[in-house]
Amino acid sequence: MSEYDGVSQLRADGSLRHLLSLEGLPRERIEWLLERAQRYVRPLGEPPARSNELAGITVANLFTEPSTRTRVSFELAAKRLGADVVNLEVQLSSRVKGESMLDTLFTLEALHVDVFVIRDSEPGVHGLVAAHAAPHVSVLSAGEAHVSHPTQGLLDALTVLQCKGRFDGLCVAIVGDVRHSRVARSAYQVFRTLGVAEIRIIAPPAFMPEENEFAGCARFTSLRSGLKDADVVMMLRIQKERMSQAAFPDPDRYFQKYGLTPERLALARPDAIVMHPQPMNRGIEIASDVADGPQSVIRRQVTNGIAVRMAVLSAVIEGRGGAA
Amino acid sequence: MSEYDGVSQLRADGSLRHLLSLEGLPRERIEWLLERAQRYVRPLGEPPARSNELAGITVANLFTEPSTRTRVSFELAAKRLGADVVNLEVQLSSRVKGESMLDTLFTLEALHVDVFVIRDSEPGVHGLVAAHAAPHVSVLSAGEAHVSHPTQGLLDALTVLQCKGRFDGLCVAIVGDVRHSRVARSAYQVFRTLGVAEIRIIAPPAFMPEENEFAGCARFTSLRSGLKDADVVMMLRIQKERMSQAAFPDPDRYFQKYGLTPERLALARPDAIVMHPQPMNRGIEIASDVADGPQSVIRRQVTNGIAVRMAVLSAVIEGRGGAA
Amino acid sequence: MSEYDGVSQLRADGSLRHLLSLEGLPRERIEWLLERAQRYVRPLGEPPARSNELAGITVANLFTEPSTRTRVSFELAAKRLGADVVNLEVQLSSRVKGESMLDTLFTLEALHVDVFVIRDSEPGVHGLVAAHAAPHVSVLSAGEAHVSHPTQGLLDALTVLQCKGRFDGLCVAIVGDVRHSRVARSAYQVFRTLGVAEIRIIAPPAFMPEENEFAGCARFTSLRSGLKDADVVMMLRIQKERMSQAAFPDPDRYFQKYGLTPERLALARPDAIVMHPQPMNRGIEIASDVADGPQSVIRRQVTNGIAVRMAVLSAVIEGRGGAA
Repeated sequence: MSEYDGVSQLRADGSLRHLLSLEGLPRERIEWLLERAQRYVRPLGEPPARSNELAGITVANLFTEPSTRTRVSFELAAKRLGADVVNLEVQLSSRVKGESMLDTLFTLEALHVDVFVIRDSEPGVHGLVAAHAAPHVSVLSAGEAHVSHPTQGLLDALTVLQCKGRFDGLCVAIVGDVRHSRVARSAYQVFRTLGVAEIRIIAPPAFMPEENEFAGCARFTSLRSGLKDADVVMMLRIQKERMSQAAFPDPDRYFQKYGLTPERLALARPDAIVMHPQPMNRGIEIASDVADGPQSVIRRQVTNGIAVRMAVLSAVIEGRGGAA
Repeated sequence: MSEYDGVSQLRADGSLRHLLSLEGLPRERIEWLLERAQRYVRPLGEPPARSNELAGITVANLFTEPSTRTRVSFELAAKRLGADVVNLEVQLSSRVKGESMLDTLFTLEALHVDVFVIRDSEPGVHGLVAAHAAPHVSVLSAGEAHVSHPTQGLLDALTVLQCKGRFDGLCVAIVGDVRHSRVARSAYQVFRTLGVAEIRIIAPPAFMPEENEFAGCARFTSLRSGLKDADVVMMLRIQKERMSQAAFPDPDRYFQKYGLTPERLALARPDAIVMHPQPMNRGIEIASDVADGPQSVIRRQVTNGIAVRMAVLSAVIEGRGGAA
Repeated sequence: MSEYDGVSQLRADGSLRHLLSLEGLPRERIEWLLERAQRYVRPLGEPPARSNELAGITVANLFTEPSTRTRVSFELAAKRLGADVVNLEVQLSSRVKGESMLDTLFTLEALHVDVFVIRDSEPGVHGLVAAHAAPHVSVLSAGEAHVSHPTQGLLDALTVLQCKGRFDGLCVAIVGDVRHSRVARSAYQVFRTLGVAEIRIIAPPAFMPEENEFAGCARFTSLRSGLKDADVVMMLRIQKERMSQAAFPDPDRYFQKYGLTPERLALARPDAIVMHPQPMNRGIEIASDVADGPQSVIRRQVTNGIAVRMAVLSAVIEGRGGAA
């Protein structure tokens, strides 16, 4: 049930050991993580949450694709819990990536690293590393190819919960390049598990996922139809180099058809919230008026992101004690 | 008065909030910063000053151009005051820099970053970020294009004060590529404000600033004439790729005309000090005999640099308390 | 006696000041370092050793060639002793490297850096920096061109001591690209000093060192002959771009002749241990069956590596107190 890529994400006692995917994580475990994360949330301008829960623990950030924001979010989450953090930017060719990542794992384990935070642009490395990790070691995904970004899914869920107070009865619209988006997949998984009634995907045909994915989601190629009465509008980042695939010769044309403007947002529920995983392409997938407008909760997502990462780090280390 | 790029660098109560430029900072505020910095100065070989003034505070170093030395100076200043530090190297094209920097600001603010240390090769980003920063957040310039390098200006002033005991009545000669130098501009501003009697600029015609800049400075194209009776000789770094602009076909020719040798230094006052912001091009703008000679205070500048940065960090956080 | 490149590695009182090379370090000093390192060793899965011996001390990692693993090992060693650590990646052309490294040294000294950990791909920079360092400052080599990698030599010696309980009477076989290997040179030096009876080098002719090096070592071009009855088999990393020098058109051909397979390992003593400095080229110099097999102590080497680096850091700082 909690398996991912053949690796159990939970220990025998049900505690969280790895976080590789939200797929297959039990609802109670997700709700428990959200509650825990909520305890670490502090409003902007107040001092951040801090503790010594991770004193003596070493966290390694292993990023094979650049991601300043997510790396800093994990780094600060770990440091504010008292951990030592080392950052490694690893450049590996595909051919040797698997075995090199395992040797890197074994080396860092031998240096007494306890938690590996991994981002990789190819699928499978996370599961491979987790499958070979020593029993006391945890692997957390900070993004895996197009397939998974579990802490993003958790922070999205936490944000919806804070704003809406519930998941049941909500309508969530996910808009943009759903096909290539790990953010969309993790959102779909977490909202499904938490009982969101209606998840819609809105995308140009070329960005629509395969039929066997996103089961149960209504699919729209028209932004206007898809936004109607939505409670949550999740915008995705467009990668400009992919727009030609979707037959948009330039950013303006994409914006014209799929950009979230105040007028289009007005089709959603009046209290709908707007989310974006960042970094945003203002003027391509989202208008600045919306990004900075009263319905935007984009900055709150970031604050929730560090809280979620603190909760996950704290959970895997605390659970280790129980399992020892 | 304390405005820079439309942003007030001081809070309503007069305390320092941002440090973007020395232009327009009141003399008392600058003197107060120098006094404060002096408290953090420790001689080489003694343990550095340390405190917990910044415990719980997070400082982000945001550098869009490489600068190991200044980044390390700010990083150690923050760590020795007890802050958490994250380093971000951001590569942004000019076209999207402004909005991306703002989104980066908002993201880092949402991660509870309190102080942004920014270096950027284009003018205007610092002011833009400061103008949009949340009220509890401070922005410190670690170098802005050719226009401003305020902590360098402060450390230069502190060095002169330590060596000469005063500013009035001094003659300061700034030598080299004044036209493209943020170091020269910040030095000019701080020495002007602090009452230095005579500031000279010495440069080849192509490196001479526009007429409307450096008001009140005597201009020399001859190094020998310009150095005569100077109390302080500030050498600037030459960028080799710019020498052809100045009609020097090779480094030797530049050195022949504008390099500071012991013989030329002898034209200044016998107790003149020699400064350089580093990194030095030995044998181009300065002879090693001078750089390492008895009149050189170049290493002392570095030690003063970390003290100045500690003072500025401490000041903006302390003042925040008062303003809250 | 303890000189390297004209620099004494020991202080007048015999304490360790720099660690640049194992060549010329007295046997008692090496044995003392190994004993000290042993105190910092913790088995995998247990919390790492920690202390506050380096509280208030600043360590700078200055790497001019990339080396994630060694950098992280030094970084964690320093942090777990309570030091502040700054990482600098310096890219310098050969022409200006010497003087730039000295100016970097002087700058970092002026920032109150106490220990410099340097890796450089050219010989001589380490000695140059050490020769100019202020009296309270220590320089540790993290790898120097093909000539020296002293902490690797110490961790190799510690690993052998743990596994074999002694050095005398042992036969150590060093296999691979000995000619270009700093690991081989430091191993040779440390094992010679510690009284290893027989050191063999096994290499294709093109990878065989000059005759005047590795005095007293038996030389083998046949892996089978060289491995016979060895107690310790030290495999070296092959750089693929060098294989053509050694007349191997492809990795398979190298592996066929010089790869360590279980069958070949069986020629050594039944209790022989297998070592590798990492990163490994599995399937080129070593078969995965051997790398992960029961005789491999490769991961233990990593754990010993951090212990050795903690011991060296602790030693140079402790000794400084005595010399002050």
